[in-house]
Amino acid sequence: MPLTEQQAIEIEALRQVQSPSRRDVAPALEEVLYKAMPVLDHGFVRVVDYMGTDSAIVQAARVSYGRGTRKVNEDAGLINYLMRHRHTTPFEMCEIKFHIKLPIFVARQWIRHRTANVNEYSGRYSIMDKEFYVPQPEHLAAQSTSNRQGRGGVLEGAEAARALEILKQDSMQAYKHYEELLNADEQGTVLDGDKTGLARELARMNLPVNFYTQWYWKIDLQNLLHFLSLRADPHAQYEIRVYAEVMLDILKAWVPITYQAFMDYRMGGAALSAKGLAVIKRMIAGESVTQEQSGMSKGEYRELMGVLGELESA
Amino acid sequence: MPLTEQQAIEIEALRQVQSPSRRDVAPALEEVLYKAMPVLDHGFVRVVDYMGTDSAIVQAARVSYGRGTRKVNEDAGLINYLMRHRHTTPFEMCEIKFHIKLPIFVARQWIRHRTANVNEYSGRYSIMDKEFYVPQPEHLAAQSTSNRQGRGGVLEGAEAARALEILKQDSMQAYKHYEELLNADEQGTVLDGDKTGLARELARMNLPVNFYTQWYWKIDLQNLLHFLSLRADPHAQYEIRVYAEVMLDILKAWVPITYQAFMDYRMGGAALSAKGLAVIKRMIAGESVTQEQSGMSKGEYRELMGVLGELESA
Amino acid sequence: MPLTEQQAIEIEALRQVQSPSRRDVAPALEEVLYKAMPVLDHGFVRVVDYMGTDSAIVQAARVSYGRGTRKVNEDAGLINYLMRHRHTTPFEMCEIKFHIKLPIFVARQWIRHRTANVNEYSGRYSIMDKEFYVPQPEHLAAQSTSNRQGRGGVLEGAEAARALEILKQDSMQAYKHYEELLNADEQGTVLDGDKTGLARELARMNLPVNFYTQWYWKIDLQNLLHFLSLRADPHAQYEIRVYAEVMLDILKAWVPITYQAFMDYRMGGAALSAKGLAVIKRMIAGESVTQEQSGMSKGEYRELMGVLGELESA
Amino acid sequence: MPLTEQQAIEIEALRQVQSPSRRDVAPALEEVLYKAMPVLDHGFVRVVDYMGTDSAIVQAARVSYGRGTRKVNEDAGLINYLMRHRHTTPFEMCEIKFHIKLPIFVARQWIRHRTANVNEYSGRYSIMDKEFYVPQPEHLAAQSTSNRQGRGGVLEGAEAARALEILKQDSMQAYKHYEELLNADEQGTVLDGDKTGLARELARMNLPVNFYTQWYWKIDLQNLLHFLSLRADPHAQYEIRVYAEVMLDILKAWVPITYQAFMDYRMGGAALSAKGLAVIKRMIAGESVTQEQSGMSKGEYRELMGVLGELESA
Repeated sequence: MPLTEQQAIEIEALRQVQSPSRRDVAPALEEVLYKAMPVLDHGFVRVVDYMGTDSAIVQAARVSYGRGTRKVNEDAGLINYLMRHRHTTPFEMCEIKFHIKLPIFVARQWIRHRTANVNEYSGRYSIMDKEFYVPQPEHLAAQSTSNRQGRGGVLEGAEAARALEILKQDSMQAYKHYEELLNADEQGTVLDGDKTGLARELARMNLPVNFYTQWYWKIDLQNLLHFLSLRADPHAQYEIRVYAEVMLDILKAWVPITYQAFMDYRMGGAALSAKGLAVIKRMIAGESVTQEQSGMSKGEYRELMGVLGELESA
Repeated sequence: MPLTEQQAIEIEALRQVQSPSRRDVAPALEEVLYKAMPVLDHGFVRVVDYMGTDSAIVQAARVSYGRGTRKVNEDAGLINYLMRHRHTTPFEMCEIKFHIKLPIFVARQWIRHRTANVNEYSGRYSIMDKEFYVPQPEHLAAQSTSNRQGRGGVLEGAEAARALEILKQDSMQAYKHYEELLNADEQGTVLDGDKTGLARELARMNLPVNFYTQWYWKIDLQNLLHFLSLRADPHAQYEIRVYAEVMLDILKAWVPITYQAFMDYRMGGAALSAKGLAVIKRMIAGESVTQEQSGMSKGEYRELMGVLGELESA
Repeated sequence: MPLTEQQAIEIEALRQVQSPSRRDVAPALEEVLYKAMPVLDHGFVRVVDYMGTDSAIVQAARVSYGRGTRKVNEDAGLINYLMRHRHTTPFEMCEIKFHIKLPIFVARQWIRHRTANVNEYSGRYSIMDKEFYVPQPEHLAAQSTSNRQGRGGVLEGAEAARALEILKQDSMQAYKHYEELLNADEQGTVLDGDKTGLARELARMNLPVNFYTQWYWKIDLQNLLHFLSLRADPHAQYEIRVYAEVMLDILKAWVPITYQAFMDYRMGGAALSAKGLAVIKRMIAGESVTQEQSGMSKGEYRELMGVLGELESA
Repeated sequence: MPLTEQQAIEIEALRQVQSPSRRDVAPALEEVLYKAMPVLDHGFVRVVDYMGTDSAIVQAARVSYGRGTRKVNEDAGLINYLMRHRHTTPFEMCEIKFHIKLPIFVARQWIRHRTANVNEYSGRYSIMDKEFYVPQPEHLAAQSTSNRQGRGGVLEGAEAARALEILKQDSMQAYKHYEELLNADEQGTVLDGDKTGLARELARMNLPVNFYTQWYWKIDLQNLLHFLSLRADPHAQYEIRVYAEVMLDILKAWVPITYQAFMDYRMGGAALSAKGLAVIKRMIAGESVTQEQSGMSKGEYRELMGVLGELESA
């Protein structure tokens, strides 16, 4: 369970209060504001604040004095145009802030997106929670044999059971020893009055990277779309992709027109090289083009055929 | 007058609408939301959106599940502590968006603050407004004789009159010729049906940098404080400082606790060098320290004495 | 002429000195280091420093202890792979610094690329040069009738002559009045001993945006590629595109493998939407797809047909 | 030992090669280029490239055509002036690139400095090294009793021995189980032909944050100074401070004038609040000011007295 009772109460209290504001409001996002949406075994994503809606993008693109909006379909047309032509600055005019609980190894990938603001729970200052990630058996993937940075099939039988056992037992023992090093339990109660306890900033180094941390993470819409295009992609590691997928739902509730444009032009689209374009033109002209004839490397040709989908298997 | 009647109507229409929101609201800022606060002869600053209040800083610093707030004085204590120790990340958790109208030469200084989002009115796409800045006579400053980057006394008499005449007439003529180049007036009406008109992106190059442009400008609170510390400073050029001063009032309405901490620790404070500290210690011990004895350069010594204020003249 | 004799001498003196260094060297870039490559009527681009070569990208991608390099074709394969898959961080490991002289209206577009470092010549501190941009007759383009942000045909005859006359005369007069306001000429010589002279930071506001400014501009390779992909594009304004084109030549001298990958995958490529991909698949399968059948807007369909080139006209 | 023999050979090979370059060279930094300077038990800092020297700062500040330099003492005067007045942009014109090996928990603090470029060794792609940090006995600090984010005295006797035992044994076991999960040893040799092995991106989650990672890290001089001002500070965690201290030596070899200005104005200096300044003025005037009379909080007063040094104890 990712939340304690006390935390659930604090969140519910926040949700009870509504105040009038002259700002633009995203009704569907207000519905879920502050709620913890569960991810993995102990993680969550919560939206804790936001600024702007689809209409803020239109306003900024028009440097408008008023709402900037004409008709809904004109707004959509403009947003589609901006997305298609990578006019990115109007999308930077919306902002969203999340509270996220996630394993440390996921946090280490996540933080590589630098154009965001972060406040992380501090293991120098506070005692880390006794919560660690253990994959569901169906996600105990083997190393891919074709791709050095990927997953293959799923571990089974005794090997799977042993893997889960290692992950659980090592985590339990690491935390037990963390408490012993601190000379304090999770709540900070001293364990042995005759001992001093190691500094929190040192004791934490015994914890593996599957332990959960949490942070406030704030980002503008343009950079969020970039994050999602990389992390909701099938090549992203499963454990970060599930966060991105929850955030896609949030995106849809927040800025539905932008969401649709993003799915059409970015998530569902593809970037073609000059060689790729040339091959496609020849194929449209009725030619069939082999890898040798394409002038592409094997890897690039395979990727192009992947983009063209069913044709490949035909 | 910085606003047309149509613009004033659009703004007033926006101000009429209030919607309930679960987000944190800054009541004093809501009072002035969307209003154009005049600056210089045709410029303005308008807040068009914001995210977070003082309490968002506290929430983020505590990575809180709820409001993060305990008592008002505890919040102020924490914010003071963060400001004093330059723990800057919690201040990045608030965001504000302005619509600003400003002379191009001011915009060129302003844009040097890179950590912000901007959408500017485009002279490639639209016809520029016929509005240009002419200083009030009391701001027609002479070049400083002691400081290459500063102003001295005020021009007077015939020289002042001539300066104003040049600025006005050259601006009027530049715009008249801009229209002739465009073969269109300010509203886009064609002037001469037999002519083609130069592209807007070229014709605009005839306009001097005292013409007004406008933009949407969005920034987080931390970077806004940095901007204000440089631009509300007495060394900043007058024409940008007046914008910063209006924004200080906005800051006070938005995040009053942060505003106070900022005035105490940043605007009213000073940075001392190792040598400066050493001199101060000697002075506190009763010694009087000349520039020669201080180990400082003349410039640095003069600046230190400036910081110590009345003592210097005593 | 963009350089004074004194400036040419300073540059030549710098070029005479070579020192041994353990750092990676880009021989073809060393050939042109410090040289001013002319752009427009008074502008230039000079490379004043650089860090890293193609091999630094390989080193960083491999987090290598040595050169990181295996064979040339392996390096090219890796760089192609990184470019194709938008693994951008290794390209951030190279850095280049330019000295650029450019009209103010070009500088205003340029500075919108925020992820770069800039030191600009200061009109607050120094007297601006008497140099302004006037287009060659063949670049006196009319406003496009189909694209609000574009150029159409070229102005001719009397209209062209008049446009050039306006631009030249207004610039000459603006500078003459600038000197009168300063009460000083271009070299700083006082004009009238009985006058005070307006502060430089004010007098400059009389100058139009076709006057030249100059700056040091430093950027990493990844962000340079992004800049070039936007500014060497046919949709960019001619007056900035000519700078980008000179910089493409510099890119080729500096990092030839990256240059080739960039031309293949970015400059010559295209981004397709989900709908665009679907249309292409149908076309490859032999179907002919009209705009109505495509599910695309007219604008998007026209752009796709543009990407597919000759087919459109066939 | 932080380096294998093979790595030492690769580094030595790089160091043997010198090439002539027209670029500015920092001779003292060339002396140590590529060398691994040891930090902690298995870490190191290596400079792998750099751009610019003190003279590049002067050149950029003057937007110079040549070296920008006049006399050494004029350069120092200008650099001191820039440092004192926080004119930060000229310092952004120098760049340095490091190869660093460091424990994951140190890397997690380090990465919070966002204005830098990073390529990290990937545990998704490669097998992590069997190297982990265990503090020297004299750094086995207890939790501070006065400061929640600090260290107190050193653990002793049986408690210290037990802490070291836990850290070592848990790390050894974590790595042994990591190999079992991978079904491969550190060199990638398969352990059991009948097993599949967990994907590297999953198996790594068993490793604690005291394991070493490594990265290429590139940063401009201005942001490096900011990093060092925070991380070479006595309040920084010891395990990151030792890296910063090695980098201070590198700074001195690279840009000696800037180093001196940085030590004078930043590392040895202090920021005073408006209240702090007021107290100092009263003290210089001969008054003795208690905390109650100061208008400051206890914390702030204590910090001010700390800055004023000996006075406190007097």
